[in-house]
Amino acid sequence: MAYTVEQIATALGAEAFGAVDMEIDGLAEPADATARDLALAMKPEYADSLPSGAAKAAMVWDGADWQSLGLEAAIISPRPRYTMSGLTTMMDPGQGWADGIHPTASVDDRAELGAGVSVGPMAVVCAGARIGAGTVIGPQAFVGTDAQIGTMGFLREGVRIGARVKIGERFIAQPGAVVGGDGFSYVTPEKSSVEQARQTLGDQGDTRSQAWTRIHSLGAVSIGDDVELGSNCTIDRGTIRDTRIGNGTKIDNLVMVGHNVEIGNDSLLCGCVGIAGSTRIGNNVVLGGQTGVSDNIFIGDNVITGGGTIVLSNIPAGRVMLGYPAMKMETTMEIFKGLRRLKRLFNDVADLKKAVSKPDASD
Amino acid sequence: MAYTVEQIATALGAEAFGAVDMEIDGLAEPADATARDLALAMKPEYADSLPSGAAKAAMVWDGADWQSLGLEAAIISPRPRYTMSGLTTMMDPGQGWADGIHPTASVDDRAELGAGVSVGPMAVVCAGARIGAGTVIGPQAFVGTDAQIGTMGFLREGVRIGARVKIGERFIAQPGAVVGGDGFSYVTPEKSSVEQARQTLGDQGDTRSQAWTRIHSLGAVSIGDDVELGSNCTIDRGTIRDTRIGNGTKIDNLVMVGHNVEIGNDSLLCGCVGIAGSTRIGNNVVLGGQTGVSDNIFIGDNVITGGGTIVLSNIPAGRVMLGYPAMKMETTMEIFKGLRRLKRLFNDVADLKKAVSKPDASD
Amino acid sequence: MAYTVEQIATALGAEAFGAVDMEIDGLAEPADATARDLALAMKPEYADSLPSGAAKAAMVWDGADWQSLGLEAAIISPRPRYTMSGLTTMMDPGQGWADGIHPTASVDDRAELGAGVSVGPMAVVCAGARIGAGTVIGPQAFVGTDAQIGTMGFLREGVRIGARVKIGERFIAQPGAVVGGDGFSYVTPEKSSVEQARQTLGDQGDTRSQAWTRIHSLGAVSIGDDVELGSNCTIDRGTIRDTRIGNGTKIDNLVMVGHNVEIGNDSLLCGCVGIAGSTRIGNNVVLGGQTGVSDNIFIGDNVITGGGTIVLSNIPAGRVMLGYPAMKMETTMEIFKGLRRLKRLFNDVADLKKAVSKPDASD
Repeated sequence: MAYTVEQIATALGAEAFGAVDMEIDGLAEPADATARDLALAMKPEYADSLPSGAAKAAMVWDGADWQSLGLEAAIISPRPRYTMSGLTTMMDPGQGWADGIHPTASVDDRAELGAGVSVGPMAVVCAGARIGAGTVIGPQAFVGTDAQIGTMGFLREGVRIGARVKIGERFIAQPGAVVGGDGFSYVTPEKSSVEQARQTLGDQGDTRSQAWTRIHSLGAVSIGDDVELGSNCTIDRGTIRDTRIGNGTKIDNLVMVGHNVEIGNDSLLCGCVGIAGSTRIGNNVVLGGQTGVSDNIFIGDNVITGGGTIVLSNIPAGRVMLGYPAMKMETTMEIFKGLRRLKRLFNDVADLKKAVSKPDASD
Repeated sequence: MAYTVEQIATALGAEAFGAVDMEIDGLAEPADATARDLALAMKPEYADSLPSGAAKAAMVWDGADWQSLGLEAAIISPRPRYTMSGLTTMMDPGQGWADGIHPTASVDDRAELGAGVSVGPMAVVCAGARIGAGTVIGPQAFVGTDAQIGTMGFLREGVRIGARVKIGERFIAQPGAVVGGDGFSYVTPEKSSVEQARQTLGDQGDTRSQAWTRIHSLGAVSIGDDVELGSNCTIDRGTIRDTRIGNGTKIDNLVMVGHNVEIGNDSLLCGCVGIAGSTRIGNNVVLGGQTGVSDNIFIGDNVITGGGTIVLSNIPAGRVMLGYPAMKMETTMEIFKGLRRLKRLFNDVADLKKAVSKPDASD
Repeated sequence: MAYTVEQIATALGAEAFGAVDMEIDGLAEPADATARDLALAMKPEYADSLPSGAAKAAMVWDGADWQSLGLEAAIISPRPRYTMSGLTTMMDPGQGWADGIHPTASVDDRAELGAGVSVGPMAVVCAGARIGAGTVIGPQAFVGTDAQIGTMGFLREGVRIGARVKIGERFIAQPGAVVGGDGFSYVTPEKSSVEQARQTLGDQGDTRSQAWTRIHSLGAVSIGDDVELGSNCTIDRGTIRDTRIGNGTKIDNLVMVGHNVEIGNDSLLCGCVGIAGSTRIGNNVVLGGQTGVSDNIFIGDNVITGGGTIVLSNIPAGRVMLGYPAMKMETTMEIFKGLRRLKRLFNDVADLKKAVSKPDASD
């Protein structure tokens, strides 16, 4: 689908210059752009590659002398990174799936589908499921018994939504995302070695080896509006009440959210993050890639963690954290520096010991 | 399905008090409970929320004065956490799937299904597969050629069991769990840089860049009785012999178990744990979330690791470990404290160096 | 399928000795071998178990006195580990799937399938997809709109290939692997707390809480020849250009490759590795299990990382790295030693302080 440069600028609330009637088919990096692409040259260093491509139009930085870059048309936006959102939405070719209920899909008669819901090939929608208007249930996706999904959702191929899960509006889930697996919750007849070791921080005592008995997960998962889930991530159901994810929270690939966890609004959980059971996470929290969080703790609003952070205890609101164990980022950076000089420190102390034991020699 | 308070207590081997004929439909946390729920108030702090809900009956702690809590009936159990197992089993509403072989399922004529086996929509059961009586093959699940699954198993939506995998009784697998992918095993024509770096602990030498050739996985996976697998976890097949998982072992979401690994009985692998190839893990081991374990090592019985532990070498039986690298938990806790004071240590040593180089100044 | 000892040796370029006409059905470890297995006894310590099994033939180490081991036939290879590749290829029983297009598969009329392509039960191939000759699309696998897969590929059950993804020859993907989920890319109307914290290394300033708006992923994923993907791994599409994986690169289970990432040729990414967006990785790189790599950085050719390494900044070519943060392996090993002696260091410094503050006492 083609747009003119002017149409694009108007849609984005940006300004268009030059041959604003030029038609644009897609977006491209400057070196890859054809004559019908809008090149993305939002920084001077990106514009350097414009001559390697064939772009006639580009999105450029505020104040750029676009004519001297050899362009015939340009769009300028005050915050180009934010403009990328609207621009990529306009230009997204999507997955190319057909509308309607595919003849191979299995939709139970007792499911309720809103207007314009589409269900892809080999998808399964169980009894009592309620799917809001305009939502796309992708190929091979699964929606369990009595599950609810709001309007305008988009479930990619192979997404699995378990029984009784409740999801708000505009939900997006990438391939293989699982919502509503059972929690990992087991108990032993007598006090277990883990319970003992936690209390003593290391000593198992003489607790016997015992078999684990399963605690079933009777709760479901409640997910707010505008939530997105990454490929092959997993969100477990709660034990008695629901696991809860607030509005606007985005969860990346291969993230695990354990049973009973509560996550607030507008938080980001980056790739490979793991949150153990019953932990609470506030609003506007950003957990960097591979961050791990212990069970039954609390992370306050606006906390940020760097990549690989291991969180073993509560974090008050507003902190920026890094490391294993998680400490303030500046403290951890200081420790990282110290570790690199640790050998020298050992040598210094060895020298000092010699010097002090023979004080005369140091004169 | 409703039970009386007395029926529940009897089933759990617990004691019922008060209006024991009261009917109960479900379980709830105290604040969320309706008049037909059994509230879970097994600790005094939980009971504080009873007035916010409408519970007339509750499970309470040993010695609780349940009448003063405003309840009409109560169940008391000597070990309430363990009682949760029986209670949640009774009250689990399950996935709501129909019995029998769904007409859209693809079950090969040469597969053998025991009495009462059910196969969900879009599920695939290959030739030679043998499924024990009462086992549920969920929607979109897959059972490969000549695979065996014991009786009373439960495979959630999208579980994948590869060819020739052997699984015992009462197996439970959450959505997207994969058993029997190929191992990650490659070899170079000449000694590789990795082989060289391992021998020298850091020096690749002048090993050339080479392409990797695949070693096929001819082994399968053997899984004992009462094993459970979490959502999207992966258990690889062995190279020649089978990868093996003992009885009663529970594996959480997004855990990876590499080729040739052997895991004993009654062990727990928490979320996001990774076990590299050919490592052996004993009985009653508990690996905390995101624990990583190197290949070709040994972890003894009853070992416990804390979250994020990276295990690079053998661990003798009975140890409680934490950290990167894994050390005794108490040692790592001591190191964590030391790291927080590392800057001060550098300063102290700097002061000492000054003092010692000018001994007169310290007087 | 049976082979004679001689046929096997010839196929592998190895030498056969003794009763070379003996027929072999499979491979086995020495203790498990039947009289029709070729036992794998490539090291003297493995040969010790030969008497526990029933092997008449074995692959043995160069220089082995095979007759004294009780064998009737033997194969000797100069580099036995490499020979394992050819040997396991010959003996692999495979997945046992039927040829052809299964009647339950959904293949769009506008898809192009090469000669001998097979498509398993419940698989979906979308419009415009092009599948090269001889490629196997496994049961419940998915190939999206306009996706391309080269010849002789093998997609196991439940593999998902998104729209417009391009994959080369001899591609192998294990169950549940996902290629072409959307990137994790969001932006806030004004500068976000993360942008601020990155610039200041820890200080969020007074950035307001904001909602995240999605940047769509218009790029696809380009994968070279001879690439293999592990179970439930995820490779995200690029934002504007494609995410790229070179020839011969192998990716293990539960690995995440973020949007815009570029990986060179013949690299290995072991289990649970995570690569954040826009990072570039060279040729012949080996990332150990659970290695995490930050976004927008560069890892040079021939770099090796040990298990659990967290890479927060660029790594020059040829380095062998370990630790959090990633440092040269020998440096990290030295630090690990130092940490174990850290308590003693604190004690030494405390003693020194006492000694120096009372110099007379140290005499």
